[in-house]
Amino acid sequence: MGSSKKSAKQDKTGTPTALSELLRAPLGPVDLSALDAAATPGYPGKGKEDAPAHTQALGPVLSDLQEQLFANGRSAPESAPRVLVVLQGMDTSGKGGVVRHVMGLVDPQGIALTSFKVPTPIERKHHYLWRIRRALPGPGMIGVFDRSQYEDVLVVRVENLVPPEVWGRRYDEINAFEAKVAEQGTRIVKCFLHVSSGEQKERLAARLDDPTKYWKYNPGDVDVRAKWPAYQQAYEVALEQCNTEVAPWYVIPSDRKWYRNWAVAELLRETMAGMGLDWPAAEFDVAAERKRVAAS
Amino acid sequence: MGSSKKSAKQDKTGTPTALSELLRAPLGPVDLSALDAAATPGYPGKGKEDAPAHTQALGPVLSDLQEQLFANGRSAPESAPRVLVVLQGMDTSGKGGVVRHVMGLVDPQGIALTSFKVPTPIERKHHYLWRIRRALPGPGMIGVFDRSQYEDVLVVRVENLVPPEVWGRRYDEINAFEAKVAEQGTRIVKCFLHVSSGEQKERLAARLDDPTKYWKYNPGDVDVRAKWPAYQQAYEVALEQCNTEVAPWYVIPSDRKWYRNWAVAELLRETMAGMGLDWPAAEFDVAAERKRVAAS
Repeated sequence: MGSSKKSAKQDKTGTPTALSELLRAPLGPVDLSALDAAATPGYPGKGKEDAPAHTQALGPVLSDLQEQLFANGRSAPESAPRVLVVLQGMDTSGKGGVVRHVMGLVDPQGIALTSFKVPTPIERKHHYLWRIRRALPGPGMIGVFDRSQYEDVLVVRVENLVPPEVWGRRYDEINAFEAKVAEQGTRIVKCFLHVSSGEQKERLAARLDDPTKYWKYNPGDVDVRAKWPAYQQAYEVALEQCNTEVAPWYVIPSDRKWYRNWAVAELLRETMAGMGLDWPAAEFDVAAERKRVAAS
Repeated sequence: MGSSKKSAKQDKTGTPTALSELLRAPLGPVDLSALDAAATPGYPGKGKEDAPAHTQALGPVLSDLQEQLFANGRSAPESAPRVLVVLQGMDTSGKGGVVRHVMGLVDPQGIALTSFKVPTPIERKHHYLWRIRRALPGPGMIGVFDRSQYEDVLVVRVENLVPPEVWGRRYDEINAFEAKVAEQGTRIVKCFLHVSSGEQKERLAARLDDPTKYWKYNPGDVDVRAKWPAYQQAYEVALEQCNTEVAPWYVIPSDRKWYRNWAVAELLRETMAGMGLDWPAAEFDVAAERKRVAAS
């Protein structure tokens, strides 16, 4: 995923033929320290200066795809496809930024966002997948998980919230769960927003230098930061163990916010373009209805 | 609300000083046929050609207000304000268009959209306000209701789904309910999207002329259209009976989509600008945290 990938095969418009190939998490052992968080694989433009335009340009395309998905959800809810975008990453990696800048490109009606926090007392009484199941996207919707089932093999593992034999079983459980969700018609796209430790430090410091950002700062983030190596390792295992064909992991280099936003938008576009979406046919007699409207 | 209002008092930037005054539903008897659905009161530009730019220009301002609201919700959930936008209107009046074009201007994280459909069997077992209460916006959120509690004095009244003495009580019940919601810290903005019968006819016909819009067409819409006068009357009564200071009704002329979108965006901006929002103060020792981050 180094910068050599920048010159990946491109079509005439300069758009990479498959960003999903460039960003797919390695199959086999994952060493995050070997993946450059500041890389910009597949980016078709110059850099920061033209990135907003490139990302905005994806808006109308994504919007159309989203509307087709939504239309199918309305016309045939039983069989309509769904999309689920899972966002994971260390604090400041930009999960919120992706929601704002990427999901903000399409109709809010088509987005079902769930931000998973520390489990509530009620959630704690249930299996860890209970709250996840309840938040799965409905027919024609793009579900977005800001944090997800993976917290149960990340913070839970690092902080020893359950015994190792319990979290150890969860990788297989999550794979089985995701396979079932996929089989029921949901296209799953899992994005790990990869930031470097140095970049995180700068972003935390920036929040303390700007009173309009104080609310984003949590002293607990520094405690989590102190466990950086343990979290990176937990991510590596999750990426290794749960990188399936039906629920692939993508590693999004996220030190450059402009690249991160473009990459997730393009990945979503590619994914949805590959779903064979089309406008649903009329379920009524169009000519007869035209007459009824004309006579009304 | 005729076009004479176009020349209402304006400040130096050309923005009306208070669109909320221009669009507030009449206090007292309401005659919708006397309110021009094609009017453009308070619009500061030329017309259709510059409207997208005027609406887009509200984006950054609305975005900042929404982020402040959201920040307060995070910092002090118990006391944080909320906003509730209620959208009502006949089929094709543009409830979905407002969600897309106005709510789409701000961070999707800050929007909690609920589209109320025909009540489900479970909803039907409860009081009609049960599902409404469950959908009220949380701290710092902008709740958006696409249809609302008003369906229970609109379709329910016109179709005689409950006896007159039952729906007859609901105006007072709704006023009491909204007063309580407002008292608990939610700013309520109710928008009636006012389209003319002629414009509705054109929009229904247009859906039948474009295969990408078939999914939006429902033969039942023509049956509802046949009861136009009864629905207009039911709206008039709802506007008359439930137009309180804490939960005002606005009549948005909606025959021109570009005006409708601008007007709702500006109304929301005005409302939120009047809430005295500010960035929450740091709840930690900023200098001490700077040192902790630097040492991390």
